[in-house]
Amino acid sequence: MKRIKMIVAYEGTNYCGWQVQPNGITVEEVLNAKLAELLKEPIKIIGASRTDSGVHALGNVAVFNTNSPIPGDKIAFALNHILPDDIRIQGSCEVEEDFHPRFRNSRKTYEYKIVNRTFPIPTLRRTAHFSHYSMDIQLMRKAANYLVGRHDFKSFATAKLEVIDTVREIYNLSIEELEGIITIRVTGSGFLYNMVRIIAGTLMEVGIKRTPPEDIEAILLGRDRNLAGPTAPANGLTLIKIEYNE
Amino acid sequence: MKRIKMIVAYEGTNYCGWQVQPNGITVEEVLNAKLAELLKEPIKIIGASRTDSGVHALGNVAVFNTNSPIPGDKIAFALNHILPDDIRIQGSCEVEEDFHPRFRNSRKTYEYKIVNRTFPIPTLRRTAHFSHYSMDIQLMRKAANYLVGRHDFKSFATAKLEVIDTVREIYNLSIEELEGIITIRVTGSGFLYNMVRIIAGTLMEVGIKRTPPEDIEAILLGRDRNLAGPTAPANGLTLIKIEYNE
Repeated sequence: MKRIKMIVAYEGTNYCGWQVQPNGITVEEVLNAKLAELLKEPIKIIGASRTDSGVHALGNVAVFNTNSPIPGDKIAFALNHILPDDIRIQGSCEVEEDFHPRFRNSRKTYEYKIVNRTFPIPTLRRTAHFSHYSMDIQLMRKAANYLVGRHDFKSFATAKLEVIDTVREIYNLSIEELEGIITIRVTGSGFLYNMVRIIAGTLMEVGIKRTPPEDIEAILLGRDRNLAGPTAPANGLTLIKIEYNE
Repeated sequence: MKRIKMIVAYEGTNYCGWQVQPNGITVEEVLNAKLAELLKEPIKIIGASRTDSGVHALGNVAVFNTNSPIPGDKIAFALNHILPDDIRIQGSCEVEEDFHPRFRNSRKTYEYKIVNRTFPIPTLRRTAHFSHYSMDIQLMRKAANYLVGRHDFKSFATAKLEVIDTVREIYNLSIEELEGIITIRVTGSGFLYNMVRIIAGTLMEVGIKRTPPEDIEAILLGRDRNLAGPTAPANGLTLIKIEYNE
């Protein structure tokens, strides 16, 4: 028996998110089925991040146990041959048997992309949110500065959240713009449910001058989901990478 | 009667190229049909660049004549409402009645994208070519330098070419790499049929050390399609913009 860690990339457009659920096909379900086919034994993977329906990933992480003789680093090559073309393993290797992708210190990096032009760009319609309301990047950066650091992010999590500890740390939150395409890139110790999309939605409200950047401080202190902006659409979000601290 | 110029963006994946042809749906055909529906009269557009099957555009140009009372700059908004989501007009305006998008001095800019990593990235599978052969960017840049300037590009055009004058000028040819994604960006006075894809295919041969960069000089002088590298696949190519000199 050995434990394998995989880096998983996917375009989320055609999936009902990561986690197995009754109402549609999910990334986890496809990986379980294709791994079973490849390794000739039932496989149940554990994912690091249960991304929502329509969210993409370049570097989600999944682990599973197997008795297969296939070397850990070869599994990525073999699995990619039988996966649909909207899922591609970026690498695989053997890890310690107690490696758990969620119960371990990590840094996660997400990107949220916005096509902020008069008209949508067809090639980016699946992987970026479109908004024709002109956004002020400087105001968005000013607002972002209030979010960096260790804060109680209760206002930036879905209201029906069950976790008690809503304190998280954002290490870095940058906003870049190139030819009308805005990229919000955020790295943190972990994120509450919908937190990146609510941050993106709030920063967009600041960008279109509906919320002054200084309000972010009061939004954080209020610990109330109703104070923050809307949850930005799923298609603009990509989980870029997860780095584990040794 | 007035003449309208439109900037046209599309994802080419689902089209048999730009130009109307019997064996499949084309961008030109869809635009003619949707413009006729909008303007209540038959419309026949003239495109600046007849992009191949599978090639994308951010800024192709098309013109047409119309008797419609809809103001020129409003046509983009109205047309986008009825176009499929893989075609989006980026702007429209009235132009002089003798404006022809092909018979006029212009600068065209294309990008060719290559995912040069061990495994493909699912979100880029439609808009970038994938190659796992590791490419040396410095060698590719060295080769690119030989192509910049005014040259006879006969070796870099499809063999069955009918044009007699195969001299063109490349103003700029840059190669950038970021996280395993290579972008070749080329601006020129005009391009022969398949020229950008043959340049990309030849630069990739240089990148994987199958062709030394110095060979480009002899390839140009030889005026023979067989001397240059293969035609790179269509899906990596995007027509970025066309600038007209006044």
